[in-house]
Amino acid sequence: MRHTKVVTLEEAIRRSGLKDGMTISFHHHFRGGDKVVNLVVAKLAEMGFKNLHLAASSLSDVHAPLIEHIKNGVITKISTSGLRGELANEISHGLMKEPVVFRSHGGRGSAIASGELHIDVAFLGASSCDELGNASGCPRSENAKSICGSLGYALPDAKYADHVVILTDDLVPYPNVPKSISSCDVDSVVVVDSVGDSSKISSGAIRDSKNPRDILLAKQAAKVIINSGYFKEGFSIQTGTGGASLAAVKYIRESMLEQGIHASFALGGITAHMVKLHEEGLIGKLVDVQSFDKVAAESIAKDQTHQEVSAVEYASADHIGSAVHALDIVILSALEVDVDFNVNVLVGSDGIIRGAVGGHPDTAEDSALSIIVCPLLRGRIPCVVPKVTTLITPGAGVDVVVTEYGIAVNPGRPEIAERLAAAGLKIVDIHDLAAKARSIIGEPDALPFGDKVVGIVMDRHGKVLDEIHNIVD
Amino acid sequence: MRHTKVVTLEEAIRRSGLKDGMTISFHHHFRGGDKVVNLVVAKLAEMGFKNLHLAASSLSDVHAPLIEHIKNGVITKISTSGLRGELANEISHGLMKEPVVFRSHGGRGSAIASGELHIDVAFLGASSCDELGNASGCPRSENAKSICGSLGYALPDAKYADHVVILTDDLVPYPNVPKSISSCDVDSVVVVDSVGDSSKISSGAIRDSKNPRDILLAKQAAKVIINSGYFKEGFSIQTGTGGASLAAVKYIRESMLEQGIHASFALGGITAHMVKLHEEGLIGKLVDVQSFDKVAAESIAKDQTHQEVSAVEYASADHIGSAVHALDIVILSALEVDVDFNVNVLVGSDGIIRGAVGGHPDTAEDSALSIIVCPLLRGRIPCVVPKVTTLITPGAGVDVVVTEYGIAVNPGRPEIAERLAAAGLKIVDIHDLAAKARSIIGEPDALPFGDKVVGIVMDRHGKVLDEIHNIVD
Repeated sequence: MRHTKVVTLEEAIRRSGLKDGMTISFHHHFRGGDKVVNLVVAKLAEMGFKNLHLAASSLSDVHAPLIEHIKNGVITKISTSGLRGELANEISHGLMKEPVVFRSHGGRGSAIASGELHIDVAFLGASSCDELGNASGCPRSENAKSICGSLGYALPDAKYADHVVILTDDLVPYPNVPKSISSCDVDSVVVVDSVGDSSKISSGAIRDSKNPRDILLAKQAAKVIINSGYFKEGFSIQTGTGGASLAAVKYIRESMLEQGIHASFALGGITAHMVKLHEEGLIGKLVDVQSFDKVAAESIAKDQTHQEVSAVEYASADHIGSAVHALDIVILSALEVDVDFNVNVLVGSDGIIRGAVGGHPDTAEDSALSIIVCPLLRGRIPCVVPKVTTLITPGAGVDVVVTEYGIAVNPGRPEIAERLAAAGLKIVDIHDLAAKARSIIGEPDALPFGDKVVGIVMDRHGKVLDEIHNIVD
Repeated sequence: MRHTKVVTLEEAIRRSGLKDGMTISFHHHFRGGDKVVNLVVAKLAEMGFKNLHLAASSLSDVHAPLIEHIKNGVITKISTSGLRGELANEISHGLMKEPVVFRSHGGRGSAIASGELHIDVAFLGASSCDELGNASGCPRSENAKSICGSLGYALPDAKYADHVVILTDDLVPYPNVPKSISSCDVDSVVVVDSVGDSSKISSGAIRDSKNPRDILLAKQAAKVIINSGYFKEGFSIQTGTGGASLAAVKYIRESMLEQGIHASFALGGITAHMVKLHEEGLIGKLVDVQSFDKVAAESIAKDQTHQEVSAVEYASADHIGSAVHALDIVILSALEVDVDFNVNVLVGSDGIIRGAVGGHPDTAEDSALSIIVCPLLRGRIPCVVPKVTTLITPGAGVDVVVTEYGIAVNPGRPEIAERLAAAGLKIVDIHDLAAKARSIIGEPDALPFGDKVVGIVMDRHGKVLDEIHNIVD
């Protein structure tokens, strides 16, 4: 190799031309196991940078060390899809001067592509990378230390950032093929001990549920799908990360086998459940923006019909070619859904940020049929409410809400309601669900919101959708 | 599918906003079998367009119908890597007012990426494409009519053109995976009877030689490689399309087997020869900008370690991450090489354009060892000359010239000369080769060049390298 891009992190930062006030970006494919954000921001702090805008595809519990960097003025602005844990709690209580900007995955992709979200330097973790900069989330040598599969959320950053630094825990000989990120988009390569703990990819929102209520909800959701009019040969499907929506796949599979129906593709965050159906021949292709567990990551590493897509290709509203435009059915979860079918997946009923926008509004709006699966109550917390605490997915894109007390159908989709009723499913008015929740729990106290705006929710078309205020304890 | 991009060619052109004077582009992956250029330009003529700039990755014999479109003022400017046949002959005789601009494959990629060559509307043929625009050179259904494999030369067009039209002879259901061109880069999809005759992919420059002199040259080239110091475990190699350079692969293979040496990758136009070595385990990866025959195209369709690269990723001088920077050895052919090791692969010794720049200057400059294989004479035409008719590859990047009268080594690479001499190879001064040719043929008449500039050769860094004048019969 006569030219090398392989340098230390400090040298890569120096070469990047990063200056105070600029925007740095990260992906979240290692989810709870991510080691790149904390490593890079600690180095930036050590090098004396201030006033940086951190634009991550998402942030989670593991990023609590950012609290100190925010207090010290290293990070003064954050853009992300989600926030969880102590960082989210502190921000909800007013840690930052500037509000956090929340975007959906498709919205972030569009904003990067259009230049609205300009990234100066992207720091992107990869499980393998060659000396020229061809990077992948798949392991490619005996020395591989990690695997995250799809690098879909990193691809807009790689394509549009002014400067791209790959961090990898396995430097392999050129050519690292198949590549996810092209050497021609990469400026420096930094070898680190670990980019992420792959065992934690499936942490966070994703879990297999054994909760009997989740299983009941999953069965109902499957019935909705099967009787919706969209369950036919060649249909396409995406499931969110909630326990019930993941469990629904099991029941849909049974009907596919019974009726001899095959799906053309499954989209989005891909799980072991989807890989299983794909390998059984029940799902033709997997279109993967994020491998949600190790099985999915291992599948994308070896299977040409399991394809990585970028966040733009997945869910951009600006691109007719994005996959959501071909999506028939999506099953999603919710923290809250209100009587106008608006959904909140970001802010808890205590007013504290504890979730992520994700692909929720993207898929709800563009799919032919969007189904929200959520219980009427979680403990003492009502999930069907008169008005969501924070608006994330406008009700116009939400077609069906499945609860354990019945199924509500958006009045804008009367044909769906008719089909479900004809199949013997219990259709209820969403106002009745909200009233039922209220009758059990009673009128909740108003949340102790302060005057400070701590978060701004952008819709996927680039407009402000809602504001999140601070919580005063 | 709720949104469709699938329209007629006429509608796609109308939607594109194409106007007189704009730049349209094409790829040449179907080589002599291409049907897209003639089809589209005929439609543009029919629709009354004038004064268009046709920027193809290359043009060949099959594009003779362009002559009429040039005469009628539909096409008034051409940029290409190569020209052959009647179109080349007419242009050499002064058909066009504006000179044709010739660029190398890497140079074209760089020029498109930098904006120097701005494409308004790209018309790109694909053997499969879905309704959203995900396109591939590989067949993906029982109805497939064509195959061209890698779409490497079309990828810069797809990425940077203002408007992209895919022409396909097989519209397949979404998602067409793996894709070469992303739906998010595509504006319209046009279904046509045929985008190309795949049986003619390996026409043109590529042929298997049974010529005894070619075989002698191939054996000598193989000896040069084996004794060059670069033939060792993990080496990388590219071969051009000349008969001798293709045949050399056979002899290199024998030495690889004997010495237990494996190549890390083969680069460039990939042939059945390289696929065979790859499948035998002798070459680790294939990095394919252009599938040179059907075997190569079929290999890239099924083999994850046979990777498509764009022209930029292949050979851009502006991108340190381009593959040529990792290339050890390249074997190339020549129409002429001169005593300063300059090479001409474009203009015949009769002054008429009959070839293509290709990746010649890109690989010669950036590889560690570049070997030109050419006979001293072709019939009555000398190939080693005092001065090349047209300068395509500057001698500074050319290390070794192999002829049947001995091997000349660039004085800038004395260590190579030493190694080859030590191995018993006959090293000669290139001036002696030129003198030998001259002594056999005699002093040729000066070519009947006129005053009109019919071609401009750009170097891969974007500077004018040479001019081609018209021929006056």
